[in-house]
Amino acid sequence: MDNAAIHRLTDADTLARAIGSAMFAQDAASQGLGMQLKKISPGYACVTMTVRHGMLNSHQTCHGGFIFTLADSAFAYACNSGNQNTVASGCTIDYLAPAREGDHLQAEAVEQSRAGRLGVYDVTVSNQEGLRIALFRGKSYQIKGEVIGGLESRTRGDPA
Amino acid sequence: MDNAAIHRLTDADTLARAIGSAMFAQDAASQGLGMQLKKISPGYACVTMTVRHGMLNSHQTCHGGFIFTLADSAFAYACNSGNQNTVASGCTIDYLAPAREGDHLQAEAVEQSRAGRLGVYDVTVSNQEGLRIALFRGKSYQIKGEVIGGLESRTRGDPA
Amino acid sequence: MDNAAIHRLTDADTLARAIGSAMFAQDAASQGLGMQLKKISPGYACVTMTVRHGMLNSHQTCHGGFIFTLADSAFAYACNSGNQNTVASGCTIDYLAPAREGDHLQAEAVEQSRAGRLGVYDVTVSNQEGLRIALFRGKSYQIKGEVIGGLESRTRGDPA
Amino acid sequence: MDNAAIHRLTDADTLARAIGSAMFAQDAASQGLGMQLKKISPGYACVTMTVRHGMLNSHQTCHGGFIFTLADSAFAYACNSGNQNTVASGCTIDYLAPAREGDHLQAEAVEQSRAGRLGVYDVTVSNQEGLRIALFRGKSYQIKGEVIGGLESRTRGDPA
Repeated sequence: MDNAAIHRLTDADTLARAIGSAMFAQDAASQGLGMQLKKISPGYACVTMTVRHGMLNSHQTCHGGFIFTLADSAFAYACNSGNQNTVASGCTIDYLAPAREGDHLQAEAVEQSRAGRLGVYDVTVSNQEGLRIALFRGKSYQIKGEVIGGLESRTRGDPA
Repeated sequence: MDNAAIHRLTDADTLARAIGSAMFAQDAASQGLGMQLKKISPGYACVTMTVRHGMLNSHQTCHGGFIFTLADSAFAYACNSGNQNTVASGCTIDYLAPAREGDHLQAEAVEQSRAGRLGVYDVTVSNQEGLRIALFRGKSYQIKGEVIGGLESRTRGDPA
Repeated sequence: MDNAAIHRLTDADTLARAIGSAMFAQDAASQGLGMQLKKISPGYACVTMTVRHGMLNSHQTCHGGFIFTLADSAFAYACNSGNQNTVASGCTIDYLAPAREGDHLQAEAVEQSRAGRLGVYDVTVSNQEGLRIALFRGKSYQIKGEVIGGLESRTRGDPA
Repeated sequence: MDNAAIHRLTDADTLARAIGSAMFAQDAASQGLGMQLKKISPGYACVTMTVRHGMLNSHQTCHGGFIFTLADSAFAYACNSGNQNTVASGCTIDYLAPAREGDHLQAEAVEQSRAGRLGVYDVTVSNQEGLRIALFRGKSYQIKGEVIGGLESRTRGDPA
């Protein structure tokens, strides 16, 4: 890797972190649920959340909607990490095991594909013991505009 | 329809409403988000929710997770309406239009199939103007036990 | 409906049928599986197929892939019926009942949403007795070009 | 790993291969499409297929249904590899890149979860250059019976 490549890599990581901070500051939903953005890099995000009593359903396990919301937030940060405004077009979730009150959940989102305006991201939700709780797959759609205006976006073919 | 069939139908509707009340009383998540269970009958449920400021994401639209959670609640009521304990195995959601702060959303869940332990339910989420916000498809898995113990469950081949 | 509206409606239907014929003539896959395009109109298509011995899996029921392929063809005709080149970005299928050798299957595709470049289509696959075999949901992505060049495409806001 | 564990591992691998052979011999659909079962082990299968002219759609690319069918076959072999009769309840596919006539496709299915009667399998379809063509996620449902009768099935908690 030459110096220019290293420089671009650094820029992409720095940009992703700046985007994460800017998004999170405006993200009432993720904040209100006690989520924390643990890590963000190009095409990747890790978000955590602790299951509160108010997240339990009538089975006294975590309502699937909150597990989904955690995964969806990680997906949103990962797919916007290149500074191109991107929204979810659709998602699927499969539940592997229940989550319970007090569980500390972690959602890791990884970009699987990005071509044209479309992207596919896989998110794995695990608990504090590393047990996988759910698998989520998000489909993204790039719209106009930038997350942080005035910066140069990460572009296709130039990952930095 | 003979008298016995009418009687069973009535019983199934009454049972579904009793199940809805019993579930909702234990459902901290749906209560906490301000949801209301508007109607429940065998294989059907309608749940409403108003989008609060705390449900907004960084785009200042309703976080997809809360739209999903509303749909997921309607799905849960519909698939448990026969008194057989039933959980979600997986779900898909497709977003058609954004929801905004103050929007009054309605999720209608309709049973599409139930065979063996598996079921498929379609949920449509609309706003106060009847505009469709999202399409959700939930897959259910029947586990052991009853929602309300000691009652006779709605059984396959005997819908009442 | 005034005369102009009737005229546009006729045009849209005629255009859809012309597109269906042009596409089917080039569609080796659907032809080779013995499919028939029974009906096509704006946002809608009905395609049929009889289950052959060569479509059976090791359980001696119709391989899910062929049920999917039938649904996918109906989806393709429905989402291209407005003459804008459109491809599938992703699909989901849920199997409700098995199909057997000799069954005559019908797939009906209905447009649920089309906004920007994205669309959502629901396809129901049924057998000769009207029993539902599978539910399919296709997500479409509009690319450049027209199915039949030189014609005026059906445009958003002007459904004719 | 002690001798007994090694013995069980060998048995599980041998059993999986025997199941693969027995299933493939009865699988007219996969055979007819020219698929080859390259490898099968507990919870895993790799199946290949070359795109024929008869698999092309009106865009002259491989009909998504055949890409799905290849992935679905790999999924079927992976989820039956423990000798418990298992069927698909539903699947999702996301297309990343088109496949063309003559492309040699490979589908690798990996078990992500298996609990109770339900399983989740991820399948990646790639072409001869290693380019990923599609991501598939299959949900399995275990029914009664064994693929090869009279053998001891692989059981939960005893992966061999």
